[in-house]
Amino acid sequence: MRKIQIGLLGFGTVGSGVAAILMNNPYDIDTRSHSNISVKKALVRNLLKERPYSDGISFTDKPDEILNDPEIDIVVEVMGGIEPARSYILSALQHGKNVVTANKDLLAIHGEELLNTANQYGRDLFFEASVAGGIPIIAAIRQSLTANSISSVIGIINGTTNYILSAMTEQGRDFADVLQEAQELGYAESDPTADVEGLDAARKLAILSSLAFNTRVKFNDVFVEGITKISPADIQYASELDCVIKLLAIAKNQGDGIEIRVHPALLPKKHPLATVSGVYNAVYVVGDAVGETMFYGKGAGSLPTGSAVVSDIIQIVRNMEGKASGLIGCGCYRNSPIKAADSFVTGYYIRLKVKDEPRVFATLALFFAEAGISFNSIIQKPRPENNAEIVLVTHPCKEGQLRQALDSLGSYSKLDKIYNVIRLETNGMH
Amino acid sequence: MRKIQIGLLGFGTVGSGVAAILMNNPYDIDTRSHSNISVKKALVRNLLKERPYSDGISFTDKPDEILNDPEIDIVVEVMGGIEPARSYILSALQHGKNVVTANKDLLAIHGEELLNTANQYGRDLFFEASVAGGIPIIAAIRQSLTANSISSVIGIINGTTNYILSAMTEQGRDFADVLQEAQELGYAESDPTADVEGLDAARKLAILSSLAFNTRVKFNDVFVEGITKISPADIQYASELDCVIKLLAIAKNQGDGIEIRVHPALLPKKHPLATVSGVYNAVYVVGDAVGETMFYGKGAGSLPTGSAVVSDIIQIVRNMEGKASGLIGCGCYRNSPIKAADSFVTGYYIRLKVKDEPRVFATLALFFAEAGISFNSIIQKPRPENNAEIVLVTHPCKEGQLRQALDSLGSYSKLDKIYNVIRLETNGMH
Repeated sequence: MRKIQIGLLGFGTVGSGVAAILMNNPYDIDTRSHSNISVKKALVRNLLKERPYSDGISFTDKPDEILNDPEIDIVVEVMGGIEPARSYILSALQHGKNVVTANKDLLAIHGEELLNTANQYGRDLFFEASVAGGIPIIAAIRQSLTANSISSVIGIINGTTNYILSAMTEQGRDFADVLQEAQELGYAESDPTADVEGLDAARKLAILSSLAFNTRVKFNDVFVEGITKISPADIQYASELDCVIKLLAIAKNQGDGIEIRVHPALLPKKHPLATVSGVYNAVYVVGDAVGETMFYGKGAGSLPTGSAVVSDIIQIVRNMEGKASGLIGCGCYRNSPIKAADSFVTGYYIRLKVKDEPRVFATLALFFAEAGISFNSIIQKPRPENNAEIVLVTHPCKEGQLRQALDSLGSYSKLDKIYNVIRLETNGMH
Repeated sequence: MRKIQIGLLGFGTVGSGVAAILMNNPYDIDTRSHSNISVKKALVRNLLKERPYSDGISFTDKPDEILNDPEIDIVVEVMGGIEPARSYILSALQHGKNVVTANKDLLAIHGEELLNTANQYGRDLFFEASVAGGIPIIAAIRQSLTANSISSVIGIINGTTNYILSAMTEQGRDFADVLQEAQELGYAESDPTADVEGLDAARKLAILSSLAFNTRVKFNDVFVEGITKISPADIQYASELDCVIKLLAIAKNQGDGIEIRVHPALLPKKHPLATVSGVYNAVYVVGDAVGETMFYGKGAGSLPTGSAVVSDIIQIVRNMEGKASGLIGCGCYRNSPIKAADSFVTGYYIRLKVKDEPRVFATLALFFAEAGISFNSIIQKPRPENNAEIVLVTHPCKEGQLRQALDSLGSYSKLDKIYNVIRLETNGMH
């Protein structure tokens, strides 16, 4: 049986998961790939650290010992970050190696350069693990749904925020309180910015939307809003409106351009994504032929992410056997304009407090009417004080229209406070 | 651009869907495959019939005009049935053509012969469309989850029965009544046997489980029970037990053998499959590395099934470009024993009517105790007559144990009737 040797760049959560899977399922993996696959070397910072699943692996702190090793067929980059990961991957491809990476940060910025280099050298660069952990959403878009013109991709692709919002929903707790618990449980980082501000989801969405629409979308193209302002009151009102609040990563092909945005949204409870809770991820894809599809699973973790990496390795080994490396290529053959936020058309949920006096609601309604916005539903509950808390849900309108109404509201003396403005997502309700 | 010509065997629902997709998305499909793909010929019975999406296609009633045409690169079999479909596919492979088929009936019986022939001639035989329409579950198992040892596959893979059970659940209606409506709407065939008796799901499960466990599972290996005995009362009791009733296709690797069964089952409402309703399908797969995953979408229809066929075609064309046809192969490298029904271990729901007299419940409980079966829950409701309707839900036991208890019950003078016995499925509740 042919021998295939792997060089791992990094041996943290994902790297050790890859090693564990190769050790746990050697018979299946070798038979499915017609090869004997093993990790030869792993690049680490600290050579003295004890590591699990390290049997037979030679550890090194010198990248060239992997990148220049002619016996290493496949380089697996699981170190994260932009540099030196980018240079290492480029060097590996230039040395004729196929590459697997789980690095969403890198791909969301330098994906084009990396994929073009892979193409230039006729090598596979696979990255299933970069989005939604073990869920094979990249292969679905790049290989299994290729008959389709994809109109939208909507994902719950950040486990940390989904855990936080799920716990807030189920237990009626505050954002800060649940975030602290998530940090203690290891579901959130000590600096949670990338997760709670939506940056992590935006990186993954840049990758997914590039593939789905065959056009280059970079991290900076994504409109991003995080979940820090979501309160238990918003979640409660959403529930009364038969909705849940989720951090959604939304990519839509609008014909005249594509919308790429990450933000919290009210989602109808009947939507297939609404029941995706805790650390689970899911991606909902609509194609013109296939209709609605959804892909669900664990979005992070050593073994789920390792599953994606090792399955990519097996695919690469099969391609090596057929001398068919580098066949899929970059796939960005379009150059679609990216729509600005002020052209997004969505419904809005607006929660505000006004003086409970005659004519106040009429005035408020007039501000929206003047901006050309009509309402889908309104909730006002009796309150003890001399204030009225009102929730307005608008029909779809442009962000520019909403801003006009909010500006009028902002200078209105009877307005006490605008608590929150959250978009609605109703795409795909059947 | 290279020209790739398709020969269609059949031009019914799926065949015309394939033609429609190729006509609707030519730019994307050609760019993604680096080829100009078109249907050259289609085999039909009636040459005089007017057909949609037939521009540029030459229709013939002679199979050899397709099978012997050296310009045809890929043969797409969408005629259904065992013969002559089997002979045509074998002939196409022998003539060096790659093949796509949507034919579950054929694969569930002759899959081994067909895949071995493809292997022998170094050709691709792809069949994504044979299970769950547009959902890319075959590619997920054969390509994207190959790092895993798969422990279970549970599917809702028959749209007709799922439509019927969903309507019975939502509207409290009878099986016969909903079936008739489904027939009028075209969701059920005039002879609904294959669907409602679970045979269609069994054929698809034979294919899925062969791939998931890398062992040959044929249609006749599948334990099958249909949904004709499910009543609105059962669905109502299931709901009180926080469950729904679904026709499940279940494949589990039990270590000492594999369990392959299709039957109605009580499924907890919180299970990811529980919300899959109407004509939607979903397949839930558990792997040792990836954990729980689920794949959701439309399981039938011209365009969803056509999506799977055309995506297979594109994959084949990419493989042809790389001279990498026939790389995946059959994959049945194990020979796992198939477990007999009497070794299945599941919980059971039993609905029965007994005389409402002292000692009756004690006697009944004793029958189960003697068979070593204990209860998870019991529902008994007051009824006007001198009879008691009782629902027993057992802890998991072997079918042999259940049969012993039911035999004792059967000869008990106070038993009026056993309405129904339905299995429980609780795998994967997190």
